Amino acid sequence: MSSRVQNRSLQARIVSAEEAAALVPAGATLGTSGFTAAGAPKAVPQALARRAQEACARGERFGVRLLTGASTGPEVDGALGLEGAVDFRFPYQGDPAMRARINAGLIEYQDMHLSHVGPLIRYGYYGKVDFAVVEVAKVREDGSLVLGPAVGASNVYLEVAERVILEVNEGVDERYEGMHDVFGVTGRHGERREIPIYAADTRCGSPYVKLDPARVAAVVLTNAADRSGAFKAPEEVHRRIAGHILDFLEGEVRHGRLPPSLTPIQSGVGNIPNAVLAGLNEGPFEQMTAYTELIQDGMIDMLDSGKLRFASASAVALSPERQARYRRDLDRYRDRIVLRPQEISNSPEVIRRLGCIAMNGFVEADIYGHVNSTHIVGKGIENGIGGSGDFARNSACSIFMSPSTAKGGRISAIVPFASHVDSTEHDVTAVVTEYGLADLRCRSPKQKAREIIERCAHPDYRPLLRDYCRRAWDADEGRHSPHLLDEAFAFHNRYRALGDMRPGLEVRP
Amino acid sequence: MSSRVQNRSLQARIVSAEEAAALVPAGATLGTSGFTAAGAPKAVPQALARRAQEACARGERFGVRLLTGASTGPEVDGALGLEGAVDFRFPYQGDPAMRARINAGLIEYQDMHLSHVGPLIRYGYYGKVDFAVVEVAKVREDGSLVLGPAVGASNVYLEVAERVILEVNEGVDERYEGMHDVFGVTGRHGERREIPIYAADTRCGSPYVKLDPARVAAVVLTNAADRSGAFKAPEEVHRRIAGHILDFLEGEVRHGRLPPSLTPIQSGVGNIPNAVLAGLNEGPFEQMTAYTELIQDGMIDMLDSGKLRFASASAVALSPERQARYRRDLDRYRDRIVLRPQEISNSPEVIRRLGCIAMNGFVEADIYGHVNSTHIVGKGIENGIGGSGDFARNSACSIFMSPSTAKGGRISAIVPFASHVDSTEHDVTAVVTEYGLADLRCRSPKQKAREIIERCAHPDYRPLLRDYCRRAWDADEGRHSPHLLDEAFAFHNRYRALGDMRPGLEVRP
Repeated sequence: MSSRVQNRSLQARIVSAEEAAALVPAGATLGTSGFTAAGAPKAVPQALARRAQEACARGERFGVRLLTGASTGPEVDGALGLEGAVDFRFPYQGDPAMRARINAGLIEYQDMHLSHVGPLIRYGYYGKVDFAVVEVAKVREDGSLVLGPAVGASNVYLEVAERVILEVNEGVDERYEGMHDVFGVTGRHGERREIPIYAADTRCGSPYVKLDPARVAAVVLTNAADRSGAFKAPEEVHRRIAGHILDFLEGEVRHGRLPPSLTPIQSGVGNIPNAVLAGLNEGPFEQMTAYTELIQDGMIDMLDSGKLRFASASAVALSPERQARYRRDLDRYRDRIVLRPQEISNSPEVIRRLGCIAMNGFVEADIYGHVNSTHIVGKGIENGIGGSGDFARNSACSIFMSPSTAKGGRISAIVPFASHVDSTEHDVTAVVTEYGLADLRCRSPKQKAREIIERCAHPDYRPLLRDYCRRAWDADEGRHSPHLLDEAFAFHNRYRALGDMRPGLEVRP
Repeated sequence: MSSRVQNRSLQARIVSAEEAAALVPAGATLGTSGFTAAGAPKAVPQALARRAQEACARGERFGVRLLTGASTGPEVDGALGLEGAVDFRFPYQGDPAMRARINAGLIEYQDMHLSHVGPLIRYGYYGKVDFAVVEVAKVREDGSLVLGPAVGASNVYLEVAERVILEVNEGVDERYEGMHDVFGVTGRHGERREIPIYAADTRCGSPYVKLDPARVAAVVLTNAADRSGAFKAPEEVHRRIAGHILDFLEGEVRHGRLPPSLTPIQSGVGNIPNAVLAGLNEGPFEQMTAYTELIQDGMIDMLDSGKLRFASASAVALSPERQARYRRDLDRYRDRIVLRPQEISNSPEVIRRLGCIAMNGFVEADIYGHVNSTHIVGKGIENGIGGSGDFARNSACSIFMSPSTAKGGRISAIVPFASHVDSTEHDVTAVVTEYGLADLRCRSPKQKAREIIERCAHPDYRPLLRDYCRRAWDADEGRHSPHLLDEAFAFHNRYRALGDMRPGLEVRP
């Protein structure tokens, strides 16, 4: 018997993953834990995937509707995606198998702001959630739960689901107990109050998630690590992006618009945001705090150096190397990290109150500052908007960053018209590439275009972009944010036809 | 001497509009009152326009940077726009002369969420505000101000401006005293607290705006009415839109997702939102409240009928006919209306807490639910995003509405790709035209497209849109939200070439 299941009635409900998965009828709606691979269930989804495989072998079909916090691990989106066992997916994913099925038109996926998940589920817009499938570190005697490296939307699914399947992961460090601050915006319409958070380190909730053991259908024991990927070492292009952001922030401090320790930083997920964190770790700012959605490697380094005083997030997802160091020193990190539900980590109310500095990657930005965070030309959706919209809309500074080109220069990150818009011109403070930072504040669309083209676009593309602007601005039509709609996507169409955005458009004198 | 200027030191500063305008140097940044024509200054901007005209006659140029709450009256945007006396305009406008100059490329205009104005100005992003030019109903003995029919961003400009020019409008009903609830999010980074509003009728601020009389450079007496336009009587197409919205809301109440009195409603500005209010006034919901930005005719009718119990807004702007009735019965309305700064009326924090029902017009919506609120094909920008983004992003229901066609059917409001995106797919609950309502919740982009085309598009355009989808979805590229980028704007290009979006695209079998 596991010491991790301290509630007596739940000890009696320990079953195998297969037995737990057998409780789930085809077509059921599942709400799972997980925010990135961190804290996602490991066993039950894989057992469900096997059920789907067996059904398929019998010429039948087994699928579920899969709601999560954000992305999950390969045991959830990978396993279920591979078997085509998902009918509907919400609100974010980042798995190759799942992505391939979505872009093959086989899975209906709704991409949504991460802060919206709690409210939309509670409003009842996604119907009855049949099962919450949630990984925990421990079940306490009273049935309350100690979560692991992620909160995500677990509190929401545990609150609304008809029945609960718990995965008690004995591989999760027990010292996670006490690191969570579970506060949900649980009131019905007319009853909701403020989220009383006034700094990154404010605590206003409980370290535990309350749960009536009677609602638990099954408990499954696991012992498995989160499978997070490694980061690439920062490249020169990433270092230059970080440098431009540091210059910008130093200027803001110098002009008195930001305090010397900055405001709480938010950092998106991936190699470039991680490289910017590395830059901040070598920069001039001390005693920083983070109010972000995910703690990744760079933030651990900043906590180590002392540059970062405190980090609030919804999850910790580290590369295998950092994970080892983190676990070794967890006692030291425990007091400097708080993990919150994503409805709180990404709350517009709190982000605006704190005046965060948002730093997120982009796929493409157009000349007027509209940002595509999700769609890759000719390929379809990559992951989803995630929390970038929550932070971009509400932060004091919203910085979007990317190398100026991809595919060896064949794709420009700066285009005349974004082929998908996730954050609009109204929500973007600055766009930055390795060439420079375009400060879009206090500028009209045409002024923004000049900034973006001259500071951010790759020199190979500047003549093409200038030429587009010149002709669009000279046209007789509205000159506020003019476009030549018959060639707005010429860059994309050239890439699709010729594999390169560059050739073909002649620059007129 | 005016009884409206009770502060003795300010009595001594009463001057003519010309004298006040003479204080303003060319290139100055002005922050004015006004939220629509309501409460905008009447005399000083016109005097500035005359200065610009005189400068022009001398072969010189006189221009200012004009920051406001939202749109203003003809005395501000009309007069200054006509003289080309504005170098930079922020954050919203709705005046024909100003619009023409912007779309002629002569004025740099930055279109911004109305809730962002307060924070962005206080962050210092718009530089020093040289003068606040604010219309008030009265100056009290201690120098504090009684505002009139609008709060807008007056509190912000009065807070940050170097010097203040007051227009004391003796034509404003003195019974406005007490109708305001001035609460500003004034703390610097790290010091801001919650906005303690939990219902439309919560009061948390002061009825007055505090002001140190020493900062006042001039007081100008005026006696002029706000010049708001009349509404058109609801047409059949508007009534049908209202009917679909009522059906939807009734369904939500029936399914327990909305309370019987709904949640606080927000209504955009214009004929269609006003017609929807007329529909709600004849509908089944009782004891409603409004948490909105502008009280227009339809809301007064709802207050009269008792359907609406209380309305919170940033301004009251009525047609001349309703204005007469409103003034006659102001004593009765005083207790059922509160006027707030726009940073509060449009606050994401409050809108999300209250779970508002947002109802805004749109210019065009694309098949995947991205909404263009601002740009008209071949013409440029119309007004601006206003508060639609604040409410769309944060409300429990975000409904966008428009007739399915414009220009006698020659323009479709539903297009393959929106020619400008103001609210993205992530922020739109429902799209509605006279043909029906597309419920976009819990749907993937392709599912949304089917809903929008089959329920909302005009029948003339459905075959064209279906054909576009069929071919885009059959293409080899990503099938999550597929587009044919070489004909994404074919509707727009046909309209620009031929004056009609319909002909020319052959429907393939």
